[in-house]
Amino acid sequence: MAPPFRHRERVRYADCDPQGVLFNANHLTYFDVALTELWREELGSYESMTREGTDMVVAAASVRYLAPVPFDAEVDLVIDWIRLGETSMTTCIAIENGGVRCSEGEMRHVFIDTDGGGKTQVPGAVRSALGPYEPVEGKR
Amino acid sequence: MAPPFRHRERVRYADCDPQGVLFNANHLTYFDVALTELWREELGSYESMTREGTDMVVAAASVRYLAPVPFDAEVDLVIDWIRLGETSMTTCIAIENGGVRCSEGEMRHVFIDTDGGGKTQVPGAVRSALGPYEPVEGKR
Amino acid sequence: MAPPFRHRERVRYADCDPQGVLFNANHLTYFDVALTELWREELGSYESMTREGTDMVVAAASVRYLAPVPFDAEVDLVIDWIRLGETSMTTCIAIENGGVRCSEGEMRHVFIDTDGGGKTQVPGAVRSALGPYEPVEGKR
Amino acid sequence: MAPPFRHRERVRYADCDPQGVLFNANHLTYFDVALTELWREELGSYESMTREGTDMVVAAASVRYLAPVPFDAEVDLVIDWIRLGETSMTTCIAIENGGVRCSEGEMRHVFIDTDGGGKTQVPGAVRSALGPYEPVEGKR
Repeated sequence: MAPPFRHRERVRYADCDPQGVLFNANHLTYFDVALTELWREELGSYESMTREGTDMVVAAASVRYLAPVPFDAEVDLVIDWIRLGETSMTTCIAIENGGVRCSEGEMRHVFIDTDGGGKTQVPGAVRSALGPYEPVEGKR
Repeated sequence: MAPPFRHRERVRYADCDPQGVLFNANHLTYFDVALTELWREELGSYESMTREGTDMVVAAASVRYLAPVPFDAEVDLVIDWIRLGETSMTTCIAIENGGVRCSEGEMRHVFIDTDGGGKTQVPGAVRSALGPYEPVEGKR
Repeated sequence: MAPPFRHRERVRYADCDPQGVLFNANHLTYFDVALTELWREELGSYESMTREGTDMVVAAASVRYLAPVPFDAEVDLVIDWIRLGETSMTTCIAIENGGVRCSEGEMRHVFIDTDGGGKTQVPGAVRSALGPYEPVEGKR
Repeated sequence: MAPPFRHRERVRYADCDPQGVLFNANHLTYFDVALTELWREELGSYESMTREGTDMVVAAASVRYLAPVPFDAEVDLVIDWIRLGETSMTTCIAIENGGVRCSEGEMRHVFIDTDGGGKTQVPGAVRSALGPYEPVEGKR
């Protein structure tokens, strides 16, 4: 199994709320950044997939908030593992600050045709590229 | 048990993404608006609580996305029920568009002292005001 | 000349920054809301125009910040006047809180074809509907 | 005079609007990122200044939009020059994509006491660090 994918991101002032920390909804925004960067690393840009007729929509998301993420911190966006279904993908994503896990959660995406918007199979290129992130059964 | 709390909100252009719909993270932003408006309706403004030394932080959030929420829709933010623990509150929130449920999820908040930031009991005023939203055991 | 157009909007927690007030960039977001609501009032929805082949892009924007806009304030978004050119529109917009002007600025939009994206004349329906907001020469 | 300060930033999906490009208000958000990074480079972190009792508030901002900034572009945030007054600072900031200038504008900040919030002189450390960015009279 591949080691977790990591992307470094700086917490913007505009992403923080009156408590001075990353606003709760923006943890999902950062999860989204993690996925975009994973795509770039493993599959080329996200747009290369949409040009070939497949897009993704979010079906579900969850976050557990463990510690506040302060303004200006340089955090790691971490993708721990990915499970690929027939037409969907579940990704476990976390935000770490100086090695401390501040939040973690899962996002479930469904692959759709850019034409009709109906569900479509996980593209072969996605399955090949992201397969190494799938947890080995019995090992987790 | 109280009927669901409802607040009408217009979907801003700035809240939408290149797919033309409410960005996935912003569903949580709208859940936050729902809670602020519930507070105003049942407890006076949110700031009246922080002035008395109690604040809330988000411990967990989840969303299930059922249908896209288009730009300019006038949606209902719906609070179905609230469970009050010793120091925490779990709220079930949804976004509806023309009677169609577009997303629903739960947020769990923990009450803290504005001084030290440690956990504190649910304030009595909160328990009185929000108690009617608690589901009756055995009825759900 | 028409009286200023006004739209009431509640300041969301997510729109505020660690100083506890509406983040500077979000004044422009609120100006955008003002324009969307003006469109609805005077022209039907914004999308009725794009369906007929005309869209707008922003060419310039400016804001003067006069007073902070706190979280949870119910502000008035005010459109003072509009100047219509051949292919462009300049709008003077302000944010007021309890009658106090907190910011004001101008946005310049250019009308474009939804097909090619080239500049196009201000649609007749827009000119008719927004003409009353044009300042009378010599009067301002 | 110092050469322009540059910081590379990736355009997030969440920052884009239904036209698929960086939302107009978010150009100001990116200008804010440019200033934070300039501060880090020239003055240490922004928080080192606030800890010593001085903060900044935005007094005015303007943007001229020259070309759309697409999702996923890796843009340069450019600070061309800075003018320091007695209690204020005017900064000329731009966004460039592949060498093409997409927007440019000015932000005017006023220095304030973190205590009372009143205007205060530009701190000496700021004047020393940012002086080289001041345009030489007669040269621009």
